[in-house]
Amino acid sequence: MAKDRKARRPRAQQPKGFRDYFGAEVTARSAMLARITQVYDAYGFDPLETSAVETVEALGKFLPDVDRPNAGVFAWQDEDDSWMALRYDLTAPLARVYAQYRNDLPSPYRRYAVGPVWRNEKPGPGRFRQFYQCDADTVGSASAGADAEICAMLADTLEAVGIARGDYIVRLNNRKVLNGVMEVVGLLDPADPEAHAERRGIVLRAIDKLDRLGLDGVRALLGEGRKDESGDFTSGAGLSADAAEVVIGFMQARGADAGATIANLRGLVTGSAGGSEGVDELERIGDLVAAQGYGTDQFLVDPSVVRGLGYYTGPVYEAELTFEITDEKGRPRQFGSVAGGGRYDDLVKRFTGQAVPATGVSIGVDRLLAALAAKGRQAAQAAGPVVVTVMDRERMADYQQMVRELRDAGLRAEVYLGNPNKFGKQLEYADTRQSPVAVIEGGDEKARGVVQLKDLALGKRLAAEMETHDEWKSQPAQIEVPRDALVAEVRKMIARAG
Amino acid sequence: MAKDRKARRPRAQQPKGFRDYFGAEVTARSAMLARITQVYDAYGFDPLETSAVETVEALGKFLPDVDRPNAGVFAWQDEDDSWMALRYDLTAPLARVYAQYRNDLPSPYRRYAVGPVWRNEKPGPGRFRQFYQCDADTVGSASAGADAEICAMLADTLEAVGIARGDYIVRLNNRKVLNGVMEVVGLLDPADPEAHAERRGIVLRAIDKLDRLGLDGVRALLGEGRKDESGDFTSGAGLSADAAEVVIGFMQARGADAGATIANLRGLVTGSAGGSEGVDELERIGDLVAAQGYGTDQFLVDPSVVRGLGYYTGPVYEAELTFEITDEKGRPRQFGSVAGGGRYDDLVKRFTGQAVPATGVSIGVDRLLAALAAKGRQAAQAAGPVVVTVMDRERMADYQQMVRELRDAGLRAEVYLGNPNKFGKQLEYADTRQSPVAVIEGGDEKARGVVQLKDLALGKRLAAEMETHDEWKSQPAQIEVPRDALVAEVRKMIARAG
Repeated sequence: MAKDRKARRPRAQQPKGFRDYFGAEVTARSAMLARITQVYDAYGFDPLETSAVETVEALGKFLPDVDRPNAGVFAWQDEDDSWMALRYDLTAPLARVYAQYRNDLPSPYRRYAVGPVWRNEKPGPGRFRQFYQCDADTVGSASAGADAEICAMLADTLEAVGIARGDYIVRLNNRKVLNGVMEVVGLLDPADPEAHAERRGIVLRAIDKLDRLGLDGVRALLGEGRKDESGDFTSGAGLSADAAEVVIGFMQARGADAGATIANLRGLVTGSAGGSEGVDELERIGDLVAAQGYGTDQFLVDPSVVRGLGYYTGPVYEAELTFEITDEKGRPRQFGSVAGGGRYDDLVKRFTGQAVPATGVSIGVDRLLAALAAKGRQAAQAAGPVVVTVMDRERMADYQQMVRELRDAGLRAEVYLGNPNKFGKQLEYADTRQSPVAVIEGGDEKARGVVQLKDLALGKRLAAEMETHDEWKSQPAQIEVPRDALVAEVRKMIARAG
Repeated sequence: MAKDRKARRPRAQQPKGFRDYFGAEVTARSAMLARITQVYDAYGFDPLETSAVETVEALGKFLPDVDRPNAGVFAWQDEDDSWMALRYDLTAPLARVYAQYRNDLPSPYRRYAVGPVWRNEKPGPGRFRQFYQCDADTVGSASAGADAEICAMLADTLEAVGIARGDYIVRLNNRKVLNGVMEVVGLLDPADPEAHAERRGIVLRAIDKLDRLGLDGVRALLGEGRKDESGDFTSGAGLSADAAEVVIGFMQARGADAGATIANLRGLVTGSAGGSEGVDELERIGDLVAAQGYGTDQFLVDPSVVRGLGYYTGPVYEAELTFEITDEKGRPRQFGSVAGGGRYDDLVKRFTGQAVPATGVSIGVDRLLAALAAKGRQAAQAAGPVVVTVMDRERMADYQQMVRELRDAGLRAEVYLGNPNKFGKQLEYADTRQSPVAVIEGGDEKARGVVQLKDLALGKRLAAEMETHDEWKSQPAQIEVPRDALVAEVRKMIARAG
């Protein structure tokens, strides 16, 4: 044994990029997940819980020409040398499960999943290597009704967790419409879909830069290219001026209402069968959510949404919070995206060779919690327990009887379990616990059949100064009540504070 | 790229020893965890959620003379070559957290934690490499009140999840009493606690074999040793006959009531200060739970409990279910242990050099679920959704309106999203979903302002034989109701079935 190594104490530190969650951080997330899954359940989605660990083969992250699986996942070798890894999302396990059990699962299969996922990435401020996802997907339905259902459920879910109507918008787009535009400008050949992939990538990135570069900058990138302020030149997609205007038209296709937007898009993709199909799907989804009573303040056909367009194969949806929050530097800003999804029709093909249509949504639970906190709408801080102090350590049974009575009445309560010799320590403890009320019963109180109740909210600022039980009793935030009125009086005191 | 490797499809299979949980398996566990944590919360325990990943250094499983961390954990190297691993229990992360944040945490710190843990062990039937734990621990209190509180909470928790009083027993023992016995028989020297460790191990194993070997077999193992039926010889602990009788006396110390047991134990450890201290602690815990109104049908001082005695440093508790279940071979058997815990006073010492007293309990959630299922007390199967069938795919909006009305009334409901052309498929689907009611609205029904409701529980056995909508309508389990009575009539039908 290497003695010197043994002598060194281990560091009490989580690995880089991981964090711990305490108290209300845990319960606020649990409460949010419960509200979300309640909506998913009402829509007929069934829970699925897979393990954190998958084979690298099933995850599909294995690069055959390197020894180790792709960076991006946490992976290791099992005893038999096969590679295992922590899941990086909840969609890859769904694909594996659907392929594995497809003969036993209902078809279509609506499932939801909640849990942590892991990314082997460089951690940064607010970026963690383990975080929660909360997904709902419908596998086995090509119907636009499935997309419309996911969209409606997304809106219901946001409202269920406390985002009011008017504070969010779900934007709809469709990869097929963009593909149609690419076809019209000559960058996509349905007979040879791999051709021009690089130029299409330039167009996508150009569209995504509209906010930053403005229309002229995007035009330059669609054409020959663009020189930025530093003098660096970015090559363009090489479109003609006319073709570039078709792409610009797509970005600006949003009309006065959904009908006008649809008409604009239909005009742009004339001649592309796939593009027209995409416009039909958008129209159908918009009609279906409108028929269910959702308004234009909730859903918007918005061709400028390109995030995720590279991944999805059909409709794409993205939920944004529209209220302003104040960032850490005190500046107002939009909170932005909290959920997104879309249709991905090649989910199971890797496993079975057979394409299976699927559509789904993923809610960024941690982002949504941050948004609610920023908006001041987070659930109230978890209530601290009533603390029964220990004045006489031989009478622990009496104090435990008190906490039992309080608990039986539905109140959170605990007896002080540290060294009871210093009464000040007990009050400090109650303070750390954010306790609303401390209960005191010394020998004198016991003899007279009473207890002292200390209103800690009221008395907080005085607590630091006091040392002895007698001094403490003189404070105004303290009352004496009959022992048998303990529960009723504690309840009153808490009600007053709350 | 290695083409031949790419050509092979990945297997849709979870890694060996891992499993998936579907539908009611997930919700039953969630419901149980919610009930358990509600009790923990009422006792003033705060939730803590750490990441699945810890440094191997913090977990303490690193063997310095080998390249790889100990088998037993799943471990891998980070980019900077430091070792990380999946946690194997919830206690090691608690130790790390307490050492890391000890200046900010309340003292004593009561915390609960719920979540999966991972073991890199050979999987076997019913043995998985990921499973749930649900722990509650009090760190920083040496008081027997802390142990008594954990014991009381354990009993309350079992009753909260549906184990009736009388169907479980919490057995109490104390490592210090056993150590006292070892001292009396000359196998433990308080001045040199490492001496005789091997012989103490033989005694512990002998005690644990009482059920199998009987008293004479145990006596032989305590003495010179024992030859089994196959002729193999097991070396004994080498105790004299008198000393062996002291150990036997410990195993049989259980008296008519707790007082008698305590008196027996006190007699056995006369002369051992540590042993007497252990007996005092047992007495104190017993008194405290009795003072709270728990009965001898719930708690038992039982020196024969040795499981965990090697790990814990003071009081040990173990909850057993006492009812019989039928095993997979149809034989009746006791279900056995579902939770255990005890005091371990060296939790944080590895990190800080300072011993911190701690006591806690771990509930085997999956075992408890299995017990409730075996007892037939598991929460009812999750309710299947009402399925609205699609008779006319152009009227998807009408069908989505129906599911919305049903959901708004608190009913789980979904529209059929597969290919609607074959009506039989839709009924099969509803069957797979364990749907209580199917709703049908063809063009004829629409024109007449009615819908058909199919009672699927009633009509299940006929479903397989029918092919057409007309034939289906003739079945007795189907009724026609006005469209605007949809919700009320579905509700009635479900109530009838339930």
